[in-house]
Formats: sequence, structure tokens, C-alpha cells
Amino acid sequence: MKQITLAHGSGGQAMQQLIGELFMRAFSNPLLDEQEDQARIPLHELTAQGDRLAFSTDSYVIDPLFFPGGDIGKLAVCGTANDVAVSGAIPRWLSCGFILEEGLEMATLERIVTSMANAAAAAGITIVTGDTKVVPRGAADKVFINTAGIGSVPEGVNWGMRQIHAGDVLLVSGTLGDHGATILNLREGLGLEGDLQSDCAVLTPLIQALRGEPGIKALRDATRGGVNAVAHEFAASSGCGIEIQEGSLPVKPAVRGACELLGLDPLNFANEGKLAIVVERQAAERVLALLRAHPLGRNAAIIGEVVEHKGVRLTGLYGVKRTLNLPHSEPLPRIC
Amino acid sequence: MKQITLAHGSGGQAMQQLIGELFMRAFSNPLLDEQEDQARIPLHELTAQGDRLAFSTDSYVIDPLFFPGGDIGKLAVCGTANDVAVSGAIPRWLSCGFILEEGLEMATLERIVTSMANAAAAAGITIVTGDTKVVPRGAADKVFINTAGIGSVPEGVNWGMRQIHAGDVLLVSGTLGDHGATILNLREGLGLEGDLQSDCAVLTPLIQALRGEPGIKALRDATRGGVNAVAHEFAASSGCGIEIQEGSLPVKPAVRGACELLGLDPLNFANEGKLAIVVERQAAERVLALLRAHPLGRNAAIIGEVVEHKGVRLTGLYGVKRTLNLPHSEPLPRIC
Repeated sequence: MKQITLAHGSGGQAMQQLIGELFMRAFSNPLLDEQEDQARIPLHELTAQGDRLAFSTDSYVIDPLFFPGGDIGKLAVCGTANDVAVSGAIPRWLSCGFILEEGLEMATLERIVTSMANAAAAAGITIVTGDTKVVPRGAADKVFINTAGIGSVPEGVNWGMRQIHAGDVLLVSGTLGDHGATILNLREGLGLEGDLQSDCAVLTPLIQALRGEPGIKALRDATRGGVNAVAHEFAASSGCGIEIQEGSLPVKPAVRGACELLGLDPLNFANEGKLAIVVERQAAERVLALLRAHPLGRNAAIIGEVVEHKGVRLTGLYGVKRTLNLPHSEPLPRIC
Repeated sequence: MKQITLAHGSGGQAMQQLIGELFMRAFSNPLLDEQEDQARIPLHELTAQGDRLAFSTDSYVIDPLFFPGGDIGKLAVCGTANDVAVSGAIPRWLSCGFILEEGLEMATLERIVTSMANAAAAAGITIVTGDTKVVPRGAADKVFINTAGIGSVPEGVNWGMRQIHAGDVLLVSGTLGDHGATILNLREGLGLEGDLQSDCAVLTPLIQALRGEPGIKALRDATRGGVNAVAHEFAASSGCGIEIQEGSLPVKPAVRGACELLGLDPLNFANEGKLAIVVERQAAERVLALLRAHPLGRNAAIIGEVVEHKGVRLTGLYGVKRTLNLPHSEPLPRIC
């Protein structure tokens, strides 16, 4: 079976061949095909869509590489695209850096690259520049991917945590914890059955449906650390508090089962295709309806509100309010 | 001694603390300080400097992390800045993704981050967005860094390999192989003395000195694979050949010594602060003088020419011409 060797990262013939036969073929587009050391994107394409460049990056180290609902390649496109998209921008261009372990099966890399290419094409994203490094066996675990993404934020769209005020309402765009529970089940061999599948998706279409909408304050995709981590960021940055209604949280039965089994909270579980959104109170029902009208948001729910009193609290099913701390760490390393 | 733990990459409190106390402090600037999931860069700052966005990425996996002349942090700034700068753009903004191994000494990370911050500040670059992942002990080797960089290419500057024609001349901006020989000496414990130091540097000032100059065809920073790899790319992309004069190559005595000892060719050695430049023949002497007038280019030399006959050839000291193949791989993995 063909494997990655140190030569594939050395700047010599083997690397040229890998780039030419795998990456250039899978990702082909006019900007990438120039094969210069940098992509050159006409600025009028950016200024036509907005007045600020949104620029974000994430590295992906997920274990296992393949999981129900996705793989590291799809995740590397969706995750960074979403970090750009939550600004209101349409993510358009990605860079892509691979760190490969010597001995990685070429077939595995091909599968990942094909998945990246498919996810990017489906989202109207082009991968315009990249880099490949190979480290000796044992110096990395199979494959790590970094992507950086760019797009333009439309004039007048100023979503951000500093817009948040007491009285605002917190929504999520769908069921919580699907990604985290799926990876946990797979990694720990829990053997849970049922509808456990990562929600890994590019959220641009759902976010664009909200773009003209007044009353939207801040958007985040609730990845590592889950909705709880986002709620803490919202609270800290706005100087307010967040109160969440436990009974309002949309959670799939299979995910709820995994959480109950392990004594974990779906609020802390990673998502890869869910938004946490703060909106003005009078806009909440309208935004909820907009979200639910879209396939990516059909399980959207209003889950809480922004209050004066600092901190994040959860009101339980019996009305008891308790402080929701940000855990020291999430239960699972290498979740994304 | 304080170490990196899995919690530092988990999206919980420990990660917030690492970001707040180390990264935000070292890299602080108004765009980063917003702490949104993406930086938002006013597009007028880009359009004021050019008409195309230059966008590039590299991952850095160098071993050892610290070496004479630099470290992985400085390299992660210089390398990506140079990949942007060779388009003629001034690199202005960087993203930064860390992949850390559990158990990494916090002091080591601090030293790297400080070095990145210093290198960026010295080059007028701001680090505006980032990401941190931690993988379990043994799943990565200490620290890997990815950076992506952006800047604007000035209107009318169209440097690129497709401009290259037979009759053009090839220059380098200084001594060859300094970075590669330094890392080789350190890694293989060769114990070579003398002036072995990485040339790791941001080349923007040198490149900007060339910007108004007519007759410049293409620029590359000659990193992995050395000048030989760049010559092969120039030849392949232009459909021409490149002939290099061995006697014209600027090589420091200490580097030449290392090469002779090991039977290696400085043309294949990595550089981290050297340009390969193709210019029209009548511009060659003027460009050479410009390069030599700058501290980063004082050992610049004309080393060869572009010819009709495809391939890359080296004319030896006794006038014998031989084909210079692109090696299957460079001698050293993890050189950058």
C-alpha cells in the first residue's frame, strides 16, 4: 500500500508529485493553478460584497479521522467557514496546511482531500493556497490540517459580542452535542446505538437567511466547549449574565442518553453545525421562525436570556437556578 | 515547572486563561482584542495599498525549536511574511494556529510566543486571529505552528513565473544554504564551528526596494529544496531552461565546508531569508546594485540565466555543464 514518506514534505520531486497529482487535481481552480507562493485574489471581488475582510483560522487534530457525519477534511472546511460566516461574511477562499505523519496511507490522505474538495465545492469555497509538511513516524498522529478562511462582511452588519445587552434573548439553531457525543461514543467504544451523527456542516446558508434581519446582536458557532463556553464568552464580553432554561434545550434522545450514562451535560458538548445567537427580545420569535424554516435550523429553540446579573446560570426542570461554571476542561481531547 | 495540559486546548477555563494571559498579551492589537471568532480588517486598508489580496500559508514543524539565528516562532512569522512579500505585497496581517503537545514546558511556549511577537512587531505585522489545539503526549512533537498571511499587491506589479522568458537572468539576494547547514549541524551533531547561523528574516524591506523597478519578472524565497527547487519551478512554469554558474554562487566558507564534508550541494539547502529573482537581462546590473545596497542583500549575485533549452543545468568551475536534477527529497526532514 502506498504511504506518505518524508520525501513528500522535502521540497523535492516527491513533494512536487504529491502536490501535482493529489492536491492540485482535487482543489483545482484558477487562483490555485497559478502555483505561486501566494494566491492573488482581486480585491474588487471582496469590496463588491462588503467593507471589512473577515479572516479566521483553525487547526484540526480530531481523532478518529473519520466519523459518522464527517471526517477531518470536511471538518477543516466547515469549521473555518463557520468562523468566517458568523461575522455575516460569505466565506469564499481558504488556505490549507497539512502536517502528515510518515507512514500515513496515501489512500487515507486521498479520502480526506476528496472530502475537503467536496465540502468546499458544495459551499462555494475555493482552496487557493496551501502547504504540506511531513514529520517522521511518531512526531505527529496521522494527519493534522490547518485552514484559514476569508470573506467580506457586508456594510452595516455589525454582529458582535459588544452589542449584547440585558433583556436580549439567546437562541440555538438546533440540537446540542451531536458532534461531541458521536466522537465520544466512537473513541471510548461506548457502543451506543441510535441517531448519533456529527452535525458537521457549513452554516453559511442559514446565516445568510438572517443577514437582513434587524435585532440580531451576536452569532457564534458553538464548537469546543459547547453552548456553555459561548455563553461564558457572551457574558464576559458584554459584562452581563446569561440564564438558560434547561427544559428548552433541544437534545436528541441518543445524545441525552449518552450524557445521562456518563453524567455529562450536553451544554458542554462540541457542535460543528450549530449557532448560538443573541437577538433583541422583540426579534426573537421572528428569528426563530426564520431559523426553523431552514433545513439547517429546523430544531432551533429559544433557550435563555441576557440579564444584568453577571455569570451564567441554568434554571433546571423544577425551576431551581444554579450557577453554570465553565468547566476547567472539556471531557474529550482532540474533538475537532 | 508549569506545563501544557490537555485542558489548555479544551475550550474550557484553562484555555481561556492561556489565551488571555499568554497570546492576547503578547500579540495585543485592536483587531485581535475584539476576541470574535474572526478578525475584521477594514477593506479600505487593503485597497489603499493595491488591487489584489495576496494570501499564503505555511506550517512550521522545525526540529530543534531553537537554533542560531532564530526559532520556530520567528520562522513562522518570517516564512509566511516572505511568501506574501514575494508577490510585491507588504505582508500586514497574520493568523496563527498552534498545535501543542501535552507536557510542553510553558516556558518554552512563552519563549516562542515572545519571539513571534517581536518578529511581527519588527516587520510591522499584526497577528489578528488564532487557534490553539493540544494533543496528548506522543501525538505531536512539542509544538507545530501554522500561519496564514495577507497583504495587498500594488496595481501594476505582476511578478510571476509566467513572465519568465529565455534571455532573462537569475539572481540570488545573498549566501546560500545558511539555514539548512545550521539545522543540519545542530541536528546531526556535526560539531562544525564558524559562521553557521540561520538567515531567517522578513524580506519585505529588500523586496520593497525593488518594487518600482522595471524588468523584474519573478521572485521567490528559496526555502525547502533551496535555489535548485525554485529553479526547477521557474523552468517548469515558464517552459524554459535555467543554467546556473557554479562559480557565481555566494556560499559562506562554513556552509561550503559542511557541504563538502557531507557531499551535499548548497543549491539544495534551505534558506529562510534569501530571494531567487529573475530579471530582464538589461535590468540585471541595476537590480544587483539595488540588492547589494540593502543590508539584507549585500551578498547578492547574478548566478545564471534563462535559456530556451528546457531543464536546469549547472556549469562547473571548469566549464563542464551537467544536468541538475531536482533531488527526490532534501537531505533533512523538519527543516522549517
